[in-house]
Amino acid sequence: MAKSQTSHETQDQLHAFLDALHSGAFDEIRRMLRGMSPAEVARLIESTPLRARNLLWQLIDKEDEGEVLQYVNEELAAHFLRHRNTEDIVSLVEGFDTDDFADLLQELPKTVMRQVLDSLDDQNRYRIETILGYPEDTAGGLMDTDIITIRPDISLDVVLRYLRRHESLPDTTDNLHVVNRTGQFVGILPLTKLLIKDPGMSVREAMNTDAKAIPASTPAREVAQTFEREDLVTAPVVDDNGVLLGRITIDDVVDVILEGADHSLMSMAGMDEDEDTFAPVWKTTRRRAVWLGINLLTAFLASYMIGLFEGTLEKVVALAVLMPIVASMGGIAGNQTLTLVIRGMALGHVGSANVRWLISKEMAVGFLNGILWSAVVGTIATLWFNDIMLGAVLATAMIINLLIAAMAGASLPMLLDKMGIDPALSGGVILTTVTDVVGFCSFLGLATLYYT
Amino acid sequence: MAKSQTSHETQDQLHAFLDALHSGAFDEIRRMLRGMSPAEVARLIESTPLRARNLLWQLIDKEDEGEVLQYVNEELAAHFLRHRNTEDIVSLVEGFDTDDFADLLQELPKTVMRQVLDSLDDQNRYRIETILGYPEDTAGGLMDTDIITIRPDISLDVVLRYLRRHESLPDTTDNLHVVNRTGQFVGILPLTKLLIKDPGMSVREAMNTDAKAIPASTPAREVAQTFEREDLVTAPVVDDNGVLLGRITIDDVVDVILEGADHSLMSMAGMDEDEDTFAPVWKTTRRRAVWLGINLLTAFLASYMIGLFEGTLEKVVALAVLMPIVASMGGIAGNQTLTLVIRGMALGHVGSANVRWLISKEMAVGFLNGILWSAVVGTIATLWFNDIMLGAVLATAMIINLLIAAMAGASLPMLLDKMGIDPALSGGVILTTVTDVVGFCSFLGLATLYYT
Repeated sequence: MAKSQTSHETQDQLHAFLDALHSGAFDEIRRMLRGMSPAEVARLIESTPLRARNLLWQLIDKEDEGEVLQYVNEELAAHFLRHRNTEDIVSLVEGFDTDDFADLLQELPKTVMRQVLDSLDDQNRYRIETILGYPEDTAGGLMDTDIITIRPDISLDVVLRYLRRHESLPDTTDNLHVVNRTGQFVGILPLTKLLIKDPGMSVREAMNTDAKAIPASTPAREVAQTFEREDLVTAPVVDDNGVLLGRITIDDVVDVILEGADHSLMSMAGMDEDEDTFAPVWKTTRRRAVWLGINLLTAFLASYMIGLFEGTLEKVVALAVLMPIVASMGGIAGNQTLTLVIRGMALGHVGSANVRWLISKEMAVGFLNGILWSAVVGTIATLWFNDIMLGAVLATAMIINLLIAAMAGASLPMLLDKMGIDPALSGGVILTTVTDVVGFCSFLGLATLYYT
Repeated sequence: MAKSQTSHETQDQLHAFLDALHSGAFDEIRRMLRGMSPAEVARLIESTPLRARNLLWQLIDKEDEGEVLQYVNEELAAHFLRHRNTEDIVSLVEGFDTDDFADLLQELPKTVMRQVLDSLDDQNRYRIETILGYPEDTAGGLMDTDIITIRPDISLDVVLRYLRRHESLPDTTDNLHVVNRTGQFVGILPLTKLLIKDPGMSVREAMNTDAKAIPASTPAREVAQTFEREDLVTAPVVDDNGVLLGRITIDDVVDVILEGADHSLMSMAGMDEDEDTFAPVWKTTRRRAVWLGINLLTAFLASYMIGLFEGTLEKVVALAVLMPIVASMGGIAGNQTLTLVIRGMALGHVGSANVRWLISKEMAVGFLNGILWSAVVGTIATLWFNDIMLGAVLATAMIINLLIAAMAGASLPMLLDKMGIDPALSGGVILTTVTDVVGFCSFLGLATLYYT
């Protein structure tokens, strides 16, 4: 009985591997790799820098390569296959589910992809090409076309005998798919029903007709939401005419969910979910440089705003000391609202129907917190610089900025989404620009009114 | 054939519901609710403010309540059950999986929980109590104890006849669990094998023995990692002696994955994954106030640092105009590194074995980007204020801050994790404190050296 592995064990393993790599103990590495499951080897490879990755890949036993390949991400799998010939590639991806096969093909150069497709038998080529006909991020791109279909008018007994003729059934087969004469989906027959119902019963009588079929053009994100909401394990996929094309299994949906979550998290820091922690320095530097440049623009905009009040700053240097507080509190509060709304949109909880309500709620929260913390900040500033007007100006500016931050944080995501801009990526920068500009201008502006 | 629902349709539905609620058209709402699946009704309820939620819940047909309850989150389900008597509760949760039942029970008051347990029959009470014996966030807390077990020495034919005696099999049953005389787990028999293998074969011959059993004490996060890595749909759970206790199904793992992703995203904005977008203003204000207060402390620390250089600021007011740039760029760059490392740790890619390597890589990236952008910033500042030394001071401070930001961003998460502090929650605040303090001090400090 194999035990599942903890991340702690993985780190220990990684230590051992890196040590062995450095000392060139390749035979020991081979031995260690043989003791691990393909999924574990894949994760190990993904947790090392590029050079070690190539080396590890070469140390895997030839007959295990295909299995390991199934568990590494497609980009990396394509990288490992780059210098292999068509025959090699076909034999390596033989054990892949049709959907994973199609995903990997799309990462390969067009000519190689063509050669691989041409070398498949008709049935398999047709199955793969059906998937390739749909964008990768739709139900059609996610589906597996290797499924078992039956007709409604036969008896369960016939189904049982039909199944016995198979060498094996596709992985995670939980349902048989019932289709009519023209191939249209009419229902599913769960194996659990097939096993307990009277064998004399017809498929039509035993099948579930309330199973949801997902149109092939449905975006992957919506597929994931449906799976989550309905607690599905597999779901049939149909074309526009209701013809059954394949099925989606939950392991691929989990990948979509993970990528989606990853996307929100990474985008909010100006990266994308493909960001490879172990990419070379130069590649990473280039990717990050763009984001820093964009943020530099907003930083200069803030500086420009401050520059407008140089006269006031010269007179009252305490303003320079206190001004970051207003901007920073606005940024923090606005970012909370922004994150909440982006998450709500991803979960499908927040949309045009309740965004108005949400904006007023967030502004009310911002106002109440503004009252609370501006009282604290105002008092401290008054005591620190012995100037009650300075405290009053600071407090007022902070209330203004927290209100604007709540409004911007709650309304920006929907607004950007309508304009076709990813809120997770650009929301934070725009929000910070707003809270910086409003923060500095309200504080220094009010101060200018009073002190000059 | 029901079609799956898009989030757009949900928003339209929500519009219609809120309109109907406002105009008191309750009969129409009842009619609309009847036309939706339980999961859709649950999502609708979760997408409305508290008052509307209670109203909607009351408008659901009595016989549908139990089904809807299965799909709303536990906190809300417990809220709806608060004023029901034991009998009502038991009949409502009848259709629940044992694990969901146990989760819900834990949200109810202790006395109610005891009464509900006492009203169950012996077998069900034993099943639920087994789950309750483990913390909610472990494999034992996640598992479902309603499983089918068989012995290895019988033939497949006997298994088939045994199954036929069942009225129904548990949802998503994909494997039968094989146990020895003392109840220890020895393997699984997939239904797909049962259906195609020779009925005369024994279970022992047909079963898979390489299936991984998960110890009941395994943390939920590790269970999720194992499911992801191995593309599992279900997995058996065993106690310390290898005795089979139940099985974990992927729908519960998806919830763990979503909560984990949600946790990272929300924590980084100082909220937690239980944050309810539709909570009352007052409750939200209180939760957010704490976070703003913590950030205010760091803002004051930055102000205090700036205050140390009041003399220099009085002399050269341009410093006040430019100083936010250094702090802000450091914060942005550091936050990228921090996010990357937190994600890597969650995925199990980053740990003690490669953190040193990662710190040097991130510092190299920070240095290169520092060179690039400090040249830009330095040039602009020189031209703007016609002061080459000001440009040089600004550029130098920025390189310093980007280096420190990379180092802090890469090392903080592991450090905090070792101290038992959640890096996603506190990493950002600490990082910003570091980049603010280093940013202002290096810039104003260098300026003080030069200008005084």
